[in-house]
Amino acid sequence: MKIRKIQPQDRAGLKALLNAQEHFKPEEIKIALELIDIVLNHPIQEDYIIRIAEGPAGEILGYICHGKAPLTDAAYDIYWIVVHPAFWNQGLGSSLLRQAEADVRRHCARLLLIETSSKPPYEAPRAFYRKHGYHEQARILDYYAVGDHKLIFGKTFTP
Amino acid sequence: MKIRKIQPQDRAGLKALLNAQEHFKPEEIKIALELIDIVLNHPIQEDYIIRIAEGPAGEILGYICHGKAPLTDAAYDIYWIVVHPAFWNQGLGSSLLRQAEADVRRHCARLLLIETSSKPPYEAPRAFYRKHGYHEQARILDYYAVGDHKLIFGKTFTP
Repeated sequence: MKIRKIQPQDRAGLKALLNAQEHFKPEEIKIALELIDIVLNHPIQEDYIIRIAEGPAGEILGYICHGKAPLTDAAYDIYWIVVHPAFWNQGLGSSLLRQAEADVRRHCARLLLIETSSKPPYEAPRAFYRKHGYHEQARILDYYAVGDHKLIFGKTFTP
Repeated sequence: MKIRKIQPQDRAGLKALLNAQEHFKPEEIKIALELIDIVLNHPIQEDYIIRIAEGPAGEILGYICHGKAPLTDAAYDIYWIVVHPAFWNQGLGSSLLRQAEADVRRHCARLLLIETSSKPPYEAPRAFYRKHGYHEQARILDYYAVGDHKLIFGKTFTP
C-alpha cells in the first residue's frame, strides 16, 4: 500500500469507494464528491488536499481530504477520511491520518480538527480519533438532528 | 429601506459594501465575495440565500447570507451579515436578521447558528446576537489564532 496525491483518473475509483460505504447517506456521498471535483477541477486551489491510499494493483483503498480552516492562522480541518470496508481495521485509516498530520505540520498547523456525530454508530470513529490523540473540543447539541449532536475533536501541535 | 432578493447587477455594490468594512481582513472580503459569486452564478443552488437591504435610491446598505447546514435535518447557518458603516445602529442588521429567521422558519428550521470571535472588537456583534435571542452553544479554543476562540451562537425555534 502506498499513499499518493490525487490524480484526475481517480474520480471513478473514488466514487466507487464512496458508494461502497453502506452507512453513508446519499447527501454525504454527494458532498464528498463535490469536494473531490473541486480538487480535480482546480489544480491550483489551496483549500483542500486529497491523499489516496493505493493497493498493489493500483486500486483505491481509501482517501483523506483535509485543508486549512478559512480565517484561521493555522487551524486545519479533516473533511473526510474514508477506507473501503474490506480493508477496515488494517491500519489504513491510521496511515492516512498520519499523512494528513505530516502535511499540515509542514504548514506549521497548531490545531487539526475533525467533526463527528454523537450517535452510537459513530463510536468506532470516535475511538479511532481518541487513539490518535484527538479529544473533544466542543459539541453543538441537536446539530445534525434532535439528539444527534456534532462533536468537534481536535489535536494540537507545537511547531 | 426594503429587503429584497439578490440580483446579478448587485455584485459591484456588494463588493463596494465589503470594501467599506474597514475591520474586514482581505481574506474575509475574498471569502464573502466567493459566496456571492456562487449565488449569482448558480441561480438554482439551494445552499445559500442572500437578501439585500436597499436604500431609497437603490443603493445597497447591507446584506445577509444564510443557508442550510450540510448533513443536518434542519439546522441553518448565517454566513455573513454586513451593514454599511454609515448605517450602523439604525436597525438594519435587526431587519436583515429577522428576514433570515423568517426564511429559515419557512423551511421548518430548528436551529440557526452564527459564528464569531471571542476577541474584544467582536463584543458589539456578540451583544447584537444576544439581544436577538442567540446564545453561545459551543466554543473552540484558540481556533482563529492563539487566544482568539471561535464562539458558536445559536437560537432554537419550535415549529
